Amino acid sequence: MRALVFDGKPVLRDIPKPTLQPGEALIRVTLAGICGTDIEILKGYSAFTGVMGHEFVGRVEESSEAGWIGERVVGEINLWCGECAWCRRGLGRHCPHRAVMGIVNRPGCFADYVALPLRNLHRVPPGIPDEAAVFVEPLAAAAEILEQMNIGPGTPVVVLGDGRLGLLVAQVLKDHGANVTLVGKHGWKLDLARRWGVRAVSGDARELEAASVPVVVEATGSARGLEEALRLVEPRGTVVLKSTVHDPVRFDATKLVVDEVTLLGSRCGSFSAGLNLLEQERIQVLPLLSKEFPLPKGLEALDFVQRERCLKVCLRAS
Amino acid sequence: MRALVFDGKPVLRDIPKPTLQPGEALIRVTLAGICGTDIEILKGYSAFTGVMGHEFVGRVEESSEAGWIGERVVGEINLWCGECAWCRRGLGRHCPHRAVMGIVNRPGCFADYVALPLRNLHRVPPGIPDEAAVFVEPLAAAAEILEQMNIGPGTPVVVLGDGRLGLLVAQVLKDHGANVTLVGKHGWKLDLARRWGVRAVSGDARELEAASVPVVVEATGSARGLEEALRLVEPRGTVVLKSTVHDPVRFDATKLVVDEVTLLGSRCGSFSAGLNLLEQERIQVLPLLSKEFPLPKGLEALDFVQRERCLKVCLRAS
Repeated sequence: MRALVFDGKPVLRDIPKPTLQPGEALIRVTLAGICGTDIEILKGYSAFTGVMGHEFVGRVEESSEAGWIGERVVGEINLWCGECAWCRRGLGRHCPHRAVMGIVNRPGCFADYVALPLRNLHRVPPGIPDEAAVFVEPLAAAAEILEQMNIGPGTPVVVLGDGRLGLLVAQVLKDHGANVTLVGKHGWKLDLARRWGVRAVSGDARELEAASVPVVVEATGSARGLEEALRLVEPRGTVVLKSTVHDPVRFDATKLVVDEVTLLGSRCGSFSAGLNLLEQERIQVLPLLSKEFPLPKGLEALDFVQRERCLKVCLRAS
Repeated sequence: MRALVFDGKPVLRDIPKPTLQPGEALIRVTLAGICGTDIEILKGYSAFTGVMGHEFVGRVEESSEAGWIGERVVGEINLWCGECAWCRRGLGRHCPHRAVMGIVNRPGCFADYVALPLRNLHRVPPGIPDEAAVFVEPLAAAAEILEQMNIGPGTPVVVLGDGRLGLLVAQVLKDHGANVTLVGKHGWKLDLARRWGVRAVSGDARELEAASVPVVVEATGSARGLEEALRLVEPRGTVVLKSTVHDPVRFDATKLVVDEVTLLGSRCGSFSAGLNLLEQERIQVLPLLSKEFPLPKGLEALDFVQRERCLKVCLRAS
C-alpha cells in the first residue's frame, strides 16, 4: 500500500498492508487530516519514525467481528493496555503503556490502510460527511477543555491563536455559552470566527487589558503564547495550555504563584463528544477545510501546510 | 524608632514612628519572623525598598477604636482598597491596587512599630504564645492549598522542600488526612518531620517513581523544583507551586499538556485558618523556631538565616 513515512525526512513509500493483531480491524482510509503535531514531528517532536498521521475517517474492511465490516469509522488515537489503573478508570488515553497512532510507537493513517483495535473505533452517524468526520479528533481535543473544568454561561474566555485548534476551541466554547474573544494574526481567519459570532481581535492581544480574563486558552502553537496568556489572565484565573511544542518553555512562575493562577494542560478528548457536536451541527468545520491532496501528493501537502495560507489540509486515499 | 531597612543593602536605621492614616492602628512589634521572601528581597525581588518584614506579632498601642488598644494581634500582609471587584468578592489579597507590607510599597514590621489598617488585624487567642503566633502568616500560606483544591483523605501527596514552608505544608496536609511524603536534603529537618509522623525521604526524590503522585507541592524555593515536581506527578495530577523566585522558570510544557497536569499557583492564605490550627494545637510550630536575635542585631540575623543551619529565625523588638 501507499504510505507517507517519516524517517528523519518525510517520504512516500510502498509498504505492506498492516497485519492484524487479535481484536484489531483493518480500515481503508478515506480521508486523513494534517495536524500541527504532524508538522512538529517533522521537527523531531516525540522522536517518531514510521507512517505519519492520526486524524482520519475510513471504512472497516477486515475484522473478527462481522458487524464492523463496511462500517464508516473514526478512531481514537491512543492504544491503551486495558489493564492498568488508568485504563480501569476509563482514562486509557493516559495509560503509561500506550502507543499513539502516528505519534508514539504505532503506524499512523497517512496510508491506504490503518489497523486499530476495535475498541478504538467509533461509527460515524450518516448525517456527518467524511469531510466533517475527519475533524472529530481535533474537535474532541477542543471539547476536552469542558471535560476538565467548569466554564459558566457568559464567562469571558480569550482564545489565543487563530489556527485550526484555536478556531475549533472558540466555536466549542461559544456553543457552550462562554463569552469568547479570539486573538489571532490572520485577518481572514478572524473573519471566519466573526461569521460564527465570535469576537475576534487582530494582533498580539495588547489591546486587551492585563489581568482581566478568567479563562485564557493558549492555542498559538508557539512557546511564547504562555507569556501572553499569563499577562491576560486575572488572579485566580485559569490558563488552558493546548500547544505541544518541541522546546522547553520559560515563564514567570512568580506571577503564577502571586496571582494564584491555574495552568491546565489539555490534550485529547472524548470522540463521542466530538461526534455529538458534529451530528447536532453545533460546530461548523467545513469552512476550515482549505485543500485536499491525493495521498500520492502527500509531500506536496506537508509543504503546502507549512508555507501557504490554509487551515485544515487533507489527504484523500480513496 | 529602630528599623531594619532595605535600600539596595540592608541597614539598621533610626526612623520616625509611622503616622497613622484613618482606620489604621499603631502596633508595637513583639516578635517578627524572617521569611524566604525577605531573603529574595535582598536579591532584588519585587524591587522593594523600605522597612523589611511581613511576619509579626505585637500589641496595639494606638487606634481610633478603643477596643483594640492593648490587644495582642497578628496582621494580614495585603493592604487592599476595599472597593474593587476583588475586594467585594472577599479576595482583597488579590486587589490590583494593593500594597503588601514589607514587599510592595508599604513599610514592614522589622521595626519597633508597624502601622496597619484595623481590618488587617486578628486578635491572638490567649492560648497561643508569641513564639507560635509569629508563624500565623506562613501557616496560613500552607493552609491556603486546602482552600484552593480538594485533597481527599489518604491521597498521596509529595512535598518537595524541607524548609520552613515545606515543613508547615507537610504538617498541615497530614493533619488534613493526606498521605504525605516530604522530600528534602537535610537529615535534621527530615527527622523533625518524621517526629510528626510524616514519611520523609532524603535526596532528590529519585527513589520515588515517576508519574506516580496525584498531588505534588513544590516548596523548594528553587527554580529547578518544578522540573522534579513534573517528573513525579501522575497524569491529570496537580502540582502546587509555592516558591516565588526572582528568575524565570523553564519547564517542559509538552509534559504538562500530554499528561493534562494542573499547575496551581498558591500564595497567602486566611489568617483565621492559621490561628485555628494553632489554637487547636494541631500543628507544631515551636520546633521550627531556630533562633531569636534582638532587633538591633537584625543584620546579623539576616546573615545567619542565609549561612547557618536553621529554620525560622526571629527578631525580638520588645
